[in-house]
Amino acid sequence: MTKRNKVYIATSIDGFIADKNGGIDWLNETPNPDKDDLGYADFMANIDAVLMGRNTFDIVRGFDMDWPYTVPVYVLSNSLKEIPADIQDRVFLVNGPLTEVLAGIHKNGHGQLYIDGGGTVQGFLKEDLIDDLTITHIPVMLGEGIPLFKTMPNRMDFELVSSETKIGQLVQTHYQRMR
Amino acid sequence: MTKRNKVYIATSIDGFIADKNGGIDWLNETPNPDKDDLGYADFMANIDAVLMGRNTFDIVRGFDMDWPYTVPVYVLSNSLKEIPADIQDRVFLVNGPLTEVLAGIHKNGHGQLYIDGGGTVQGFLKEDLIDDLTITHIPVMLGEGIPLFKTMPNRMDFELVSSETKIGQLVQTHYQRMR
Repeated sequence: MTKRNKVYIATSIDGFIADKNGGIDWLNETPNPDKDDLGYADFMANIDAVLMGRNTFDIVRGFDMDWPYTVPVYVLSNSLKEIPADIQDRVFLVNGPLTEVLAGIHKNGHGQLYIDGGGTVQGFLKEDLIDDLTITHIPVMLGEGIPLFKTMPNRMDFELVSSETKIGQLVQTHYQRMR
Repeated sequence: MTKRNKVYIATSIDGFIADKNGGIDWLNETPNPDKDDLGYADFMANIDAVLMGRNTFDIVRGFDMDWPYTVPVYVLSNSLKEIPADIQDRVFLVNGPLTEVLAGIHKNGHGQLYIDGGGTVQGFLKEDLIDDLTITHIPVMLGEGIPLFKTMPNRMDFELVSSETKIGQLVQTHYQRMR
């Protein structure tokens, strides 16, 4: 089984994933007349399951749409007590040390994971558990907000896999960890 | 006279321009057998003068080479008392509010300026005085260090001019301020 922990996330030029109020409307202000999916379907084609934090879970639940994931979703949370009944067959609560969480997910047969949410991504980066990182840079400086990166204990070298411009204005760059 | 304030700088994936000790050796670790200049000559071809902070000035002075700039260099500093004798014909001390500093440089006939150094760039960004921003992303996460961006008071929208991969590993992106 291929095991890879992957990040696919958008940031402002100055490195924020949300504004100071948690708002993400600025992510979608670039004209996109052909509804380009910015590589999302291609990315998800090689994902077995999603692992997200509780904040991201709440944001996705708040969207006015059906549950959007076709793969199993693991929600990493110590505070959440149970998953709402309507999605209990597709969403699973996990907690504990990340390596143990991963071992459990792998045991379920899910090797290629989409790691999502600022805090969860930071937790994985701190333990050097991210293998692939796709960052889409939005051409705006927010000035302040929720950062993608916080202090990490060690330097980590990556390799550029590809970089391309999406809808004329977004730069999407894929890095993989050199090990 | 065309007046534009331009930044041309490299950062780590996590947004640092130097490591926690001010070190920048990691900038030059990507193999570059053909000594590609990463667009520097093209960038400098449209620069009338350089404006840098005192730290950057000290770093450049510390390099084991002749003074590298062929255009006038303005050093923004309140602490520096005088410019060393060997470069007094090419380097000029300035200080005061940035708009006044700029007015003085423009009066000297220098309109297209290379704004360099972390603190100086941050000062210009805080006052929304940057027109062009070329960021070269190095595929490494340092974990900690001297950040390119600090908190800024306002959101600023940019436009992607171009993005290209340099020496197979660096992503160089040129943005211009939308006004």
